[in-house]
Amino acid sequence: MNFTKNAANRLIPDSINGENCIPFKGVGKYIPEGRKYAPRISSVANFPSDGNKQVKSLKEALLKAGLKDGMTISTHHHFRNGDFLANMVFDIAHELGIKDLRWFPSASFPCHHHLIKYLEDGTINRIEGSMNGPLGKFASEGGMKGVGVLRSHGGRYQAVQDGEVEIDIAVIGAPTADPFGNANGLQGDSACGLLGFALADSQYADKVIVVTDNMVDFPCIPWQIQGNYVDYTVKIDKLGDPEKIVSGTTQITKSPDRLLLAELTAKFCDAAGIIKDGFSFQSGAGGTSLAVGEYFKSIMKEKNIRARFARGGSNKYLVSMLEEGLVDYILDGQTFDLDGVQSMADNPNHVWTSPFTSYNYHGKGNFAQFVDVVILGATEVDVDFNANVVTHSDGYLLHGIGGWQNCLFSKTVILPVPLFRDRIPVIRDEVTTLCGPGELIDVIVTERGIAINPLRKDLIKAVKNSGLPLKTIRELKDEAERICGIPEPQEYDDDIIAVIKWVDGTVIDAVKKVKK
Amino acid sequence: MNFTKNAANRLIPDSINGENCIPFKGVGKYIPEGRKYAPRISSVANFPSDGNKQVKSLKEALLKAGLKDGMTISTHHHFRNGDFLANMVFDIAHELGIKDLRWFPSASFPCHHHLIKYLEDGTINRIEGSMNGPLGKFASEGGMKGVGVLRSHGGRYQAVQDGEVEIDIAVIGAPTADPFGNANGLQGDSACGLLGFALADSQYADKVIVVTDNMVDFPCIPWQIQGNYVDYTVKIDKLGDPEKIVSGTTQITKSPDRLLLAELTAKFCDAAGIIKDGFSFQSGAGGTSLAVGEYFKSIMKEKNIRARFARGGSNKYLVSMLEEGLVDYILDGQTFDLDGVQSMADNPNHVWTSPFTSYNYHGKGNFAQFVDVVILGATEVDVDFNANVVTHSDGYLLHGIGGWQNCLFSKTVILPVPLFRDRIPVIRDEVTTLCGPGELIDVIVTERGIAINPLRKDLIKAVKNSGLPLKTIRELKDEAERICGIPEPQEYDDDIIAVIKWVDGTVIDAVKKVKK
Repeated sequence: MNFTKNAANRLIPDSINGENCIPFKGVGKYIPEGRKYAPRISSVANFPSDGNKQVKSLKEALLKAGLKDGMTISTHHHFRNGDFLANMVFDIAHELGIKDLRWFPSASFPCHHHLIKYLEDGTINRIEGSMNGPLGKFASEGGMKGVGVLRSHGGRYQAVQDGEVEIDIAVIGAPTADPFGNANGLQGDSACGLLGFALADSQYADKVIVVTDNMVDFPCIPWQIQGNYVDYTVKIDKLGDPEKIVSGTTQITKSPDRLLLAELTAKFCDAAGIIKDGFSFQSGAGGTSLAVGEYFKSIMKEKNIRARFARGGSNKYLVSMLEEGLVDYILDGQTFDLDGVQSMADNPNHVWTSPFTSYNYHGKGNFAQFVDVVILGATEVDVDFNANVVTHSDGYLLHGIGGWQNCLFSKTVILPVPLFRDRIPVIRDEVTTLCGPGELIDVIVTERGIAINPLRKDLIKAVKNSGLPLKTIRELKDEAERICGIPEPQEYDDDIIAVIKWVDGTVIDAVKKVKK
Repeated sequence: MNFTKNAANRLIPDSINGENCIPFKGVGKYIPEGRKYAPRISSVANFPSDGNKQVKSLKEALLKAGLKDGMTISTHHHFRNGDFLANMVFDIAHELGIKDLRWFPSASFPCHHHLIKYLEDGTINRIEGSMNGPLGKFASEGGMKGVGVLRSHGGRYQAVQDGEVEIDIAVIGAPTADPFGNANGLQGDSACGLLGFALADSQYADKVIVVTDNMVDFPCIPWQIQGNYVDYTVKIDKLGDPEKIVSGTTQITKSPDRLLLAELTAKFCDAAGIIKDGFSFQSGAGGTSLAVGEYFKSIMKEKNIRARFARGGSNKYLVSMLEEGLVDYILDGQTFDLDGVQSMADNPNHVWTSPFTSYNYHGKGNFAQFVDVVILGATEVDVDFNANVVTHSDGYLLHGIGGWQNCLFSKTVILPVPLFRDRIPVIRDEVTTLCGPGELIDVIVTERGIAINPLRKDLIKAVKNSGLPLKTIRELKDEAERICGIPEPQEYDDDIIAVIKWVDGTVIDAVKKVKK
């Protein structure tokens, strides 16, 4: 394997899985000159004249779609850790003796540990998509035959749109669908809210299979996936475990440390003048992020202002802000709890979006750019404000990128992180894996101080008399090291187990096999 | 010009405007093997970081979009005869001295007679799109430099999707938009309901300009056109004349002849067993069609049944059926009156569709196929049930195809037509221009009898004891000729002024220049 240093000074392989890698050139520096992927032209003459595309089983659908060795099979992750469908797909592939598949999920979860045996026996060559938990551990230890590719939600849309990944068969789990293939995530036992992560798959895959456990008469209204892109529909008993698809009970953190991070983050935004009438924000569904939202809420109420929009992942807390008139719109990419699903189904101001609208870097703009402030997490941050979200400091690849890279294009990016976790410093000389360039990361909030990126002179000026505990990033690093000691450098095997794509399809870093 | 006979026995030119014509091969016989058109890949890096794409004027937008000689400029016709925008575009082109443009509207209307001078002076080379009224008369008399191309709504989507027509600049009039380019037709002074006719243009054009007279803060909700496809946005004073965009007062015909046609049509459907619980129908917004809908309504009320869906063009009569629970859903392609617009904005069961969902023949199915019965018009029908909707019997091209060809794929197609108009028989030995093959047309209803296509043995059997005035198509023709005399054959010039495309992009007929 040959390596090249990219613009972020990271060594990346020249090629993986028989395909060339384009090295990261810098933010906004790689401008593609080609054309989008052109799917085959279909003809109505080749489809049932009554529009009923239903076949008897998923197996029949996969066979009709021409499943064979070496194909790329895509799935989506709106069912999160409650998904049954991806496992079914590969059980069938294994039963049929198919080998060497590329699994291209929008994300994989611990529930997919079932598939490790198919990675071992060669049914699946590799996963291109996030590998949360056990699959990531398996890959990190060198278990996967091919090299993994991690992309952001927007990067996944970009890769499909640009033809970087050609999907042979997309399998789209749909909580409600009609026999023509129109589908939504709003209704039915497996309701997950929306199906945006499967949008690119429906538009660009050669064959599209919609699988539902709630088949309704045409027309399925609303349609989030359009039947005009669909080849086959299948009714099965159960797509997943509803309790794991959406949570019945999203909870704000009770940890005093994390509450402090949230409070400092909200105070920073207030002091910096970000929380003003008509502003916009995005915070995730983790405990800290939820708490930030609640602090925002009380500041907004006090100031008697409203936000123009908030970006989801939605949950009951965000929904309550919509219902109380504190935000005009929720522009939502996924719903994390039942309140989110219900609100999306009922409230026209709770709008479903997709990686195309929100995150695709190879579009004519995207929504992430407009957001005034976004609150994100990180496993590590370094003294140049670079951040890591996929590996732990021991080198294990245990998380996906999600929309994280895409959100870095928001106007202000804040990472509230603890100074250390399990006595391992979070702020370091260099991140283990580079996911986001420091120039896009503005503020690091820790329980022991707030560091502002020197590039953001405006923010530094705005908060200088705020009384907030401002420090430099190096001061924070030193403080962490005083408490935890200087971390030992990690040793790795030479093998590359995955690469990390930037939002434009270039390779920003590579992940090495861990030494056990 | 060389000619070939196509599968419908019509002489069509081998090429027009420097492009080869594929002759019509028969219904469902031409299966394309290529790939869809691949638009250029964009990069967010080339668009304003705050998402604000607004430029000062339409002229500036056209200049930035690179307007130059020979380009293809598209517009949509949701503003119908109230449109100001298309005229503005070509005023600017003329002012800039641009020549030889291809105008690719989804339809043109009498309000665009303003553009005849630009067809004369070479600013516009030709119109590809329907030419209603004066533009059609102008073309018929040989005034247009290039050869016109008429496509159905679905055929237009197909042509753009397949790369048969490459749009350089799409100009999309939007009753409401945000500076990013998200747009809808539901709100604002120029509200027209929806923007589906501009969908293909937004997805596939090289440059997309959204022009609005109601610019709102991001996000414009709902978005029917997605800003992620848009290059520039422009605010102008007025897109059109609201009174001509949508009618305040749709009216059912009061003509006893047309009421009779409507009544016979409804009675036929009832006798044939088409009007049953869960059925679906589409009838237009013309006076006769509206009356058919009202007869349907009373039959449905009497039988205590509901339709699963009705396809719009919507109007107050159809909206009342939705509101009274007689139809579950309206799947709507355009709104013809204010009640239609309001219902679409307010009622989630009044659903906006597009030529992609409803009519595109080069998709994996489309909605038109599912409709149980569709009621359409025609200027002429011949003894083989072939029909014409674009030319009059004197050869003048005065109408567009609209969704007419696409609707022929519905399960039962009924044409209620008068036996003669102005003492000119409507039923003839051969239609002047072939728009729809007789094998797809099932029933001709006239005031003097109903003819069923012999291919539809099921319908013939179903209504044989109904007491309806059943006749053969030849009996109807003979009756018309007894009253009006046998029409003189029309004489034409040899020049071709337009071709008629079938839904699959092949040429089904050509229109000759009239002899004045």
